[in-house]
Amino acid sequence: MINVGIIGFGTVGTGTAKILLENNDVIEEKTGLQVNLQVIADLDIKRDRGVKIPDGVLTREVSDVIDNPDIHVVVELIGGIQPAKDFILRALSNGKHVVTANKALIATEGKEIFAEAEKNSVSVGLEAAVAGGIPIIKVLKEGLVANRILSIYGIINGTSNYILTKMTDDGIDFSDALKEAQSLGYAEADPTLDVEGLDTAHKLAIISSLAFGIPLSYDRIHIEGITKLTLQDIEFAGELGYKIKLLAIAKSVNGEVELRVHPTMIPENYLISRVDGVLNAVYVMGDAVGETLYYGRGAGDMPTGSAVVSDIVDIAGEIENRGISSHGIEFIGKRSDLKIKAIGDIESMYYFRFTALDRPGVLSRVSGILGEYNIGIAAVIQKGRRAGAAVPLVVLTHKARERDVQKALQEIDRLDVVADRTAFIRVEGEETEGLND
Amino acid sequence: MINVGIIGFGTVGTGTAKILLENNDVIEEKTGLQVNLQVIADLDIKRDRGVKIPDGVLTREVSDVIDNPDIHVVVELIGGIQPAKDFILRALSNGKHVVTANKALIATEGKEIFAEAEKNSVSVGLEAAVAGGIPIIKVLKEGLVANRILSIYGIINGTSNYILTKMTDDGIDFSDALKEAQSLGYAEADPTLDVEGLDTAHKLAIISSLAFGIPLSYDRIHIEGITKLTLQDIEFAGELGYKIKLLAIAKSVNGEVELRVHPTMIPENYLISRVDGVLNAVYVMGDAVGETLYYGRGAGDMPTGSAVVSDIVDIAGEIENRGISSHGIEFIGKRSDLKIKAIGDIESMYYFRFTALDRPGVLSRVSGILGEYNIGIAAVIQKGRRAGAAVPLVVLTHKARERDVQKALQEIDRLDVVADRTAFIRVEGEETEGLND
Repeated sequence: MINVGIIGFGTVGTGTAKILLENNDVIEEKTGLQVNLQVIADLDIKRDRGVKIPDGVLTREVSDVIDNPDIHVVVELIGGIQPAKDFILRALSNGKHVVTANKALIATEGKEIFAEAEKNSVSVGLEAAVAGGIPIIKVLKEGLVANRILSIYGIINGTSNYILTKMTDDGIDFSDALKEAQSLGYAEADPTLDVEGLDTAHKLAIISSLAFGIPLSYDRIHIEGITKLTLQDIEFAGELGYKIKLLAIAKSVNGEVELRVHPTMIPENYLISRVDGVLNAVYVMGDAVGETLYYGRGAGDMPTGSAVVSDIVDIAGEIENRGISSHGIEFIGKRSDLKIKAIGDIESMYYFRFTALDRPGVLSRVSGILGEYNIGIAAVIQKGRRAGAAVPLVVLTHKARERDVQKALQEIDRLDVVADRTAFIRVEGEETEGLND
Repeated sequence: MINVGIIGFGTVGTGTAKILLENNDVIEEKTGLQVNLQVIADLDIKRDRGVKIPDGVLTREVSDVIDNPDIHVVVELIGGIQPAKDFILRALSNGKHVVTANKALIATEGKEIFAEAEKNSVSVGLEAAVAGGIPIIKVLKEGLVANRILSIYGIINGTSNYILTKMTDDGIDFSDALKEAQSLGYAEADPTLDVEGLDTAHKLAIISSLAFGIPLSYDRIHIEGITKLTLQDIEFAGELGYKIKLLAIAKSVNGEVELRVHPTMIPENYLISRVDGVLNAVYVMGDAVGETLYYGRGAGDMPTGSAVVSDIVDIAGEIENRGISSHGIEFIGKRSDLKIKAIGDIESMYYFRFTALDRPGVLSRVSGILGEYNIGIAAVIQKGRRAGAAVPLVVLTHKARERDVQKALQEIDRLDVVADRTAFIRVEGEETEGLND
């Protein structure tokens, strides 16, 4: 019998408790393991969460969980950095295994937490921290263990994906889509973490360290959110055969790693382009397995609870078999020799929307500057001519170096025929035949 | 150091050997485990497989693997029932763990193999037996361990999916698409196992037993292949907004399980409808996690080798930690109380293509018979009128009972206005508003 204590009886805590109480029978049938929900600590133990908790399980004292000698596994579900970090460190130093859904904490303070776990020969379960119910941590640590991971592309923030889907499908702008997401409970009152890409970057830090063995590198990730995306760009993308998604991207190329979070144009016939609404998906390319994709709900009480409980069961199995394998976690930081690329050093295809005055010679001046910086043009859209007025001029490029792109755009934005700052979006996918090669 | 012996140096054996030799470093970095490819047995040890095998590893004697006291894990990759079964049983009785990609053997003789493994306290790894590189076995056993599985829909035969994709996208008929698949090496000279749905059913037997705890039930699966599908039906399906895929379907409803393999119409906006070519995907619905989908290559040397090696590494971890958890395998057969439905008892939506003579009153006679059997009509397509000649009359139904459908079709096919046997395809997806409710 493995005794579990939960800290935090919010959304995910409730889902986890429900699963431990209601699916206990099937878990035991599947694994032979008995997992007992012994205690749940929360400041509010009165509110009805729609789940019947047995008498004596609820407590207001966190020490009833983390200092309780009967508890084997501490589940941290309060989120945020403090006091979550102190609770976890204390639980680990008490020799307890820890399961957490706290991506912000792991992404930024994971090193200290893993060191404390190692010191005490206990496990830290992270499945719920990335992509909710999708078992992507297990896939990276175990399912694809035979592979050198080449690249990862993730839609791992349901809020942003919901907003982008609304903008794309219903033609409503960012702020209206955000309001709708908030009214449905998909976005918080302060949506910064989600729409500015920070939550996506927290998760990317975790999966990239598991995939490539680099140290947790949240502060090295180039992060752009979706707040500046316009309907116009979404429509032009559609016309060019692309969807715009907020992607977490990690690639390993020649001993260097790219880590970035930004709105990305993806060919609309790619499977990941079809991942809409609050759903998440992670595309993983391994050297042996080739392309794989994992899809499901990235948030919510029960999907995230499913991930929490899978970690609890794994740890229960390890305890019962008296063999702790931190299988995969020890990979993190082993490849600190891998250099993380600065954003200026990456190569990508690009979408530009120039706000050009409709005068003769504009296209030649713009394309001339692009040419000087070795930026090849793959497609151009120019429409809605109004002599002398500002019209959008859309250019899709071949692969170019980001540093050159930034310089070219600075130069172009200084032209007297360019009326506003140029919008640009990075583009993933196969290169197409172009105009000038 | 864990010593591995492979039996069968064919496609998957070669991929497995490559991975064990070339990715050994990254596997050790990830897990701390040393996995040593000690011996490969095959009748042909001369042919160049494009991988450099160290001296002394190749042997023509299978006993160098299964009776070798140094070998911890025996990997069976020869396929077929015999002698694979005897080799596996002998390896197990020698106390060796076994990893196999042999779906036909596990689906039909798994009970005996699992019993022998249990008797000797060793593991049997099956990841490579279903969906190649997609870690679907691990997902079912571990990642979704917290869930009662509600349903599974799988595209798990790349050959059939390639043929259907060709028929759909290029408008070529079954036999031409099959020839193309054969010329590309995607289909065997005798394609029966693939195109008649038997291979899909082997895999369905394995995943349904892991998902629901039923005994391996290959002989209870209703199986229809893709050989009778016509371009006409694929086109009508497209017109109605559906794709046709060969699906493995397992559903648990009220203590009863449906197990079936047949061409299925799926709404074209479902993610699984976009899984084309030789790619595989498995959709799994769990009571906690909701809908999830796993996508990747279902065959080939390296993808399948990736799965084989993930099993080897899992077992190596168990050996090193001196704790063997057959985690999930023991679930198989525990729920032998679950009744497997006869095909006549299932409920589904249906597509019918009647070959009707274009005479007044045909639709009324056909729909009258459908009405008598409580089969509601959701959509009708009738085109290409040629008075007195046979024309297709296409009907999409609401949910109806298969037994009623079979009876209604028998009656309809006896009508003097019906010139040929009615084509019918089962339809999955949401019910749509209909004509007669």
